Formats: sequence, C-alpha cells, structure tokens
Amino acid sequence: MTDPQADTAAASRPEGRCPTLRLQPGRDRRLRAGHPWAFSNEINMTAAARALPPGSVVRLEGDDGTRFGTFHFNPHSLIAARRLSPDPVAVIDRGFWRARLAAALRLREKLRDAPYYRLVHAEADGLPGLVIDRHGEVATLQANTAGMEAATSEILAALLDLIPLRAVVARNDSCVRALEGLPLESRLLHGQDASATIEEGGVRFTVDPDAGQKTGWFYDQRPNRARVAALAAGQTVLDAFTHTGGFGLQAARAGAERVTLLDRSEHALDTARRTAEANGLIDRVEFLRGDAMEVLARLRDQNRSFGVVVSDPPAFAKSRKDHDAAIRAYARLARLSAALVSPGGFLFIASCSHHVGTGEFTDAVIEGMRRARRDGRILGIHGAGPDHPVHPALPESAYLKGVLLQLD
Amino acid sequence: MTDPQADTAAASRPEGRCPTLRLQPGRDRRLRAGHPWAFSNEINMTAAARALPPGSVVRLEGDDGTRFGTFHFNPHSLIAARRLSPDPVAVIDRGFWRARLAAALRLREKLRDAPYYRLVHAEADGLPGLVIDRHGEVATLQANTAGMEAATSEILAALLDLIPLRAVVARNDSCVRALEGLPLESRLLHGQDASATIEEGGVRFTVDPDAGQKTGWFYDQRPNRARVAALAAGQTVLDAFTHTGGFGLQAARAGAERVTLLDRSEHALDTARRTAEANGLIDRVEFLRGDAMEVLARLRDQNRSFGVVVSDPPAFAKSRKDHDAAIRAYARLARLSAALVSPGGFLFIASCSHHVGTGEFTDAVIEGMRRARRDGRILGIHGAGPDHPVHPALPESAYLKGVLLQLD
Repeated sequence: MTDPQADTAAASRPEGRCPTLRLQPGRDRRLRAGHPWAFSNEINMTAAARALPPGSVVRLEGDDGTRFGTFHFNPHSLIAARRLSPDPVAVIDRGFWRARLAAALRLREKLRDAPYYRLVHAEADGLPGLVIDRHGEVATLQANTAGMEAATSEILAALLDLIPLRAVVARNDSCVRALEGLPLESRLLHGQDASATIEEGGVRFTVDPDAGQKTGWFYDQRPNRARVAALAAGQTVLDAFTHTGGFGLQAARAGAERVTLLDRSEHALDTARRTAEANGLIDRVEFLRGDAMEVLARLRDQNRSFGVVVSDPPAFAKSRKDHDAAIRAYARLARLSAALVSPGGFLFIASCSHHVGTGEFTDAVIEGMRRARRDGRILGIHGAGPDHPVHPALPESAYLKGVLLQLD
Repeated sequence: MTDPQADTAAASRPEGRCPTLRLQPGRDRRLRAGHPWAFSNEINMTAAARALPPGSVVRLEGDDGTRFGTFHFNPHSLIAARRLSPDPVAVIDRGFWRARLAAALRLREKLRDAPYYRLVHAEADGLPGLVIDRHGEVATLQANTAGMEAATSEILAALLDLIPLRAVVARNDSCVRALEGLPLESRLLHGQDASATIEEGGVRFTVDPDAGQKTGWFYDQRPNRARVAALAAGQTVLDAFTHTGGFGLQAARAGAERVTLLDRSEHALDTARRTAEANGLIDRVEFLRGDAMEVLARLRDQNRSFGVVVSDPPAFAKSRKDHDAAIRAYARLARLSAALVSPGGFLFIASCSHHVGTGEFTDAVIEGMRRARRDGRILGIHGAGPDHPVHPALPESAYLKGVLLQLD
C-alpha cells in the first residue's frame, strides 16, 4: 500500500541506521494483508534481536526478502513489532512525527469546529500505541508502547511545532503499558498549568489532567451525547455512571426538565456539581452517589421513572476471561435501566469493553429489556465518534458501542 | 411484554369476533421470545384455518393454551401470522390504527423538526408489513401483507384523522407483495395532486410519487447525507448511483467546489438537474450518465480524482442466492471508488442489501481498498436513520449499512 505521508517525511533522506529483522519462514501472511503488527512468534528472534532495547526502530523483512517497512520493536512484548511506515527506508525523526501529527490534525479540523477531540488514535492514525487528546491549549499524551515511550520527547517537539499548546501531560497510567514493561505514571511534559476548559453541547466543562484526581474527558461518546441531548427537551433524565456529568449536563442544556446524575465517585460528582453551577444548570440537577446497579434497583423499587435513561458504565470485561460475566452484567444493567424508562421514553446504554462485540452486547441489551417485560424499538447502534478512527486491519479495536432504544 | 398502546385502544371493548388458531405442539419458542411472526409450519393448519381469507385478524394460542395475542394471518404465506398486539382481545379498528400511527408520529416529531421522514417502519412500529413515508402534506403507503392490504381504508382514515394530508399514494410496487399473493400497483388513495417538495440539508427536492416515473425519496440515508455534506466544503465530490442527487446536491449546498452526479437513469438525472437549477446550484454540478461501474473505471483511466466519493448503489443481493456475487461486486465497487479518492479524501460506500451483513460488507470494502492499494482509516459504520427503527427480535431487518473512510 502507498503511504504518501511517510514519503513526504522520508524522501531524499539517507537510510537510517537501524537493524533489519527477519520473519520466520511462512509467517508473513498477516503483514502481507496490511496488518500493522508482527507477533513475537512471527519474528526470527536471534540473540541480536533479543538484545535490542525495547522501543528500537527496525526494518522487517520476510524470509524471501520482501521488505515490509519500518517498525517499533519490543523483544519482550507479544506484539513485538508495530508498523510505523510501509516505507523500508523511512527515517523516524521529528519530521516524521510532525507529518503524521499534521495529518491527524487536518482530519480533526475537518470533523470538528472546536479544538476538543481525540487528536491521535494510535494505529488508525499511523502512530501505533500513541493516544493524544486535545483540550484546547492543553493536550494529554499516552505512550502505550516502548517505542512511543522512547520517542516521546521528539513527538512532543513535533506536536509543539504544530499547535501552540500551553501544557502537555503524559497520562501514562493505562494498564496496557505493563505489557510493554513500562511504569505507570503521570507527569507534566510541557508547561505548568494543565487545567483546561472544553466546550461540548453548549456546556463548558473543566478538565484537569495533571491534578491529583485526574479528570480527563471521554471524547468517544461525543456524538452519542448529542443524540441523547436532542431527545431530552422537556424530559426527566437519569444519567447513570455519569462521571463528571457529560451526558446529563448536556441534556440539561438542551432543555431537560430535571436531570439526575448518578455516580459512585464523590470527586466526579463534585466536579459535575461545579460544572452545573458554572453553567447555570444547577437548579435542574439532582446528584445521587452510590453503586449504580444498587441505586437503579432502589429507584425501581421506589417506582421512579424517567423520560430518558443513560447507562454508560466503565468496561465490565477488562480481560477476555471476564467475557461471560460481563455479558450477564450488561443484561442485568439493561433490565434495571429499562425498568426506569417511562412509556414512550428512551434508553441509551453503552459498553466500552474491548472483549464484548457489538452483536453480543446488543443481544444482552435486548435480553435485559425482555426480562424487564418491555417492548420497544432500536433507533440506532452507534460506535465512537470519527475522531476515534479504526485501522482497517484492526476492526476489533472499535471498542465502543451504544444502543439507543425507545420503549413502549 | 406489556403494550400500553394496544391497551389504550382495546381496553373496555368487547372481544372482537375473530378466529383463534393454535400453534403446533412445541412450536412456541419464537413467539415466547417476543418474535412478532409465526411461520406456516408452526401453526396447526386446519381446514378452517386454510379457508380463512388472506389478511384475516386472528388470535394465536400455544398448544398449552398460552395466548400470544392478535395477528394478521395469511394461510398462503410462509410468514403466516404477524403480531399486531400481544393483547389477545385487541380490537383492530380505526382506533387501533390511530393509536399506533399516533405513537409513530410522536417519535418522528421528536427525531426531526421538519415533516419529511419515514413515518411508519413496519414491525418496529407495531405495524407489521406497513411502510409510510411522509413528504410534508403528501404520504406514500406500502401495504406489504394481505392484512395491511385489507386494512388500507381504515388505516387511511386513521392517518387522515392525525395529519391533514393533501394526498396519499399507495406505492404497492414492492416485490415482497408477490409472496403474499398481492398485485403490484400504484394508485392515489386520497387527494388529487401527490407532488410534493421536501427539504433536506438546505436543498428543496421535488418528489412525485404518483407520476409515471415514480420519484420517491430514500429517507434512510438522511444522517449519512449530512455526514458527507459536513466533509464536502471546498472539495470536489463524485456521487455515484446518485438517483435524484440526494448526496451530491446537499454536498454542493454545504460548499463543495464541484459535484459530479452519476447515474444510469436519464429520468433521475433530469430530476436532479431541475433540483440543482431550482436551488441555485447548477453552476457547480456536472452530470454523467452511464453504468456506474463502467464510468468509475473510465474516470480512473482518465486519472480523475475527487476529495469525496459516494457510492450508494441499489441492492446487489436481491435474494439469498445472490449473496456471494454481491460480496464480490461490493469489493469491486470499493476498489473502483477508492481509486478515485484523492490523498486525504473521503469515501462513503453503502449497501442496502438485506442479504449482506454489516461485518461482511465492511470486509468487502476493506478488501476493495486493499486491492486499490490504498491505506486509510474507518471513520464510522452507520446504519439507517432513527426514523427506520429496528424490531428487537428482527435485527436482520437493519438492511442499510454505510462505511465512511478517509484514504491516505
């Protein structure tokens, strides 16, 4: 496949000095099909290869000499090589990073008229293992591979070339870093004050990625928050697992009569309360602290009902072994949530579990609705917003799915 | 499951005089799970049952006496019974139809601030086999079962109770009517002039469902036309299989520099041309008549490229036996379309084949992109708009899927 971005960065430069690794005989099917990864058992792990520092830049060749391009390499990781460029002589320097970041930025500027979005979504943006969120003049950066960890200072410089950011925070607290042998940490890479205000759905939210209790923002649900808000005028709204009030406060801004924000975290609810006050929405907002499943059951026992119910929990399946329990938990959540929807009202229920597919999640939701003895109709099944693109060879990386229903 | 709508319509009425049919022993699993259909081999087809006129209203009971509700029945159809209500004593009269239509209308009025939408989407709206599109003061109605055919005059009266329509046209030209033993026909049910003007994406389109060459409107793609238009400013746009210009003219209104509309139908292109003129867009629009696949290949040979390419063909798989050929045709269409997208540009490609699933369609698109030697990212996979709801037990009825990609 062609890669004009890499060509721009690498053309007319001398071939960098980086080692060439070989695939095992017959193990090139995945890379030939355009997949961006090579697993450790696909690579001929010579002593020299094993000795390379995690995060090295390497070239990969097939057993027949086919050149597959330039990769980040980690001899200690199951995903041993991640493709940076199909160009086998690409130079991976500040210019390379700048070209990739510029392409990602151009796309987001087409998709969104305000500077609040996921700027880089890893493999899909040609930057494997790198995630950057932009909150106006502040950015958070996650380096989830040894390669991206090693390149962080160059990437930071390239990022600042493109966007005059006031602060950049490394939010390296994702547990996937452990698979790469990297420490969990959060630190300021640039600037001093990383607090920022973002705007979404007419509400201004404060994010403070560098504070003790890190409040980031989940941009993936942005279009779904807009969908829910569009149905909220004149309705009572329950936002379960609200975190800092994303769905509920945008529904309030869109004209909801009353909004109930439910979360187990006092810190998250405090943040939501301050946001409600700062946006003049506090009179219409109620706060409930507690375990969402328990509170949903209690509200049902109290015969409460809402015109719109949102249930957007953290991932129930954090690993593959949680899969079956997670499916049961989603069905239970759907049952408890559906029971609280008034006739003719709406339910939006989401899953961000990588290990649960869209079809089986939808089935679990329908099963829960059936157990709540509710009829209705599916108005849409929606993934993350377009600032979270998906690499064509990694469809399973589309982790977010939400089902919007109307119940009779 | 509960059904408050039916309760409203049927409560306190005497049980209508309609026959009760029994399921075969052990054939109640589907109905117990909330499915709205009973197949002919699930019903105890007595001589009396076989003698019932197609379209009769019946009650269905399990072999154990469980009452499954009130159904439309057609002894000559594979889908022999379609549930109208879980209420086993529902009275199916003008009041029943009015309650169902009113619920469908309330939903659409929440979803859309202009009266242009699919008003009734069959089973998902509790009206099995009935499809109604609303073009402002004009509606088109499709009765795809013998039951809905028999009820058409009552449904029409109920519809006119709710909406002061100037004209209603029966567009009974869907080939699914043949399965019910119904003739294909198109006729004016109400009023005299069925021509109408609808507005979408800032463009006024004329529809004339009663004219010789029936021009209706495909509301299912409305949100996707808005997605494409949002990317079109300053771009060149190719709209292949444009029909009457839905995608392309809304892209022109959104600021596309130049739009090429491609279709094989001279009548459709004439309609698109008149729309472009009436909306002051004609200067930016080019018309190409021909077989879309052939023209796409020719444009590629001419090294043409476009910032945005839309390929929204008619169903390639009209029946299950077409499945494999359709998958190959979608991959070929994706290859030809991807080849015309300029670097950094966008491709939206859709399938409305009932017999091709979302996953396999997406795979075919990615395969075509790979064969065109193009890298890129999936920005979203989108179904029909929410005015085309899906019955929870009929997920396979979600026929429309479109993939939005950015190509490098």
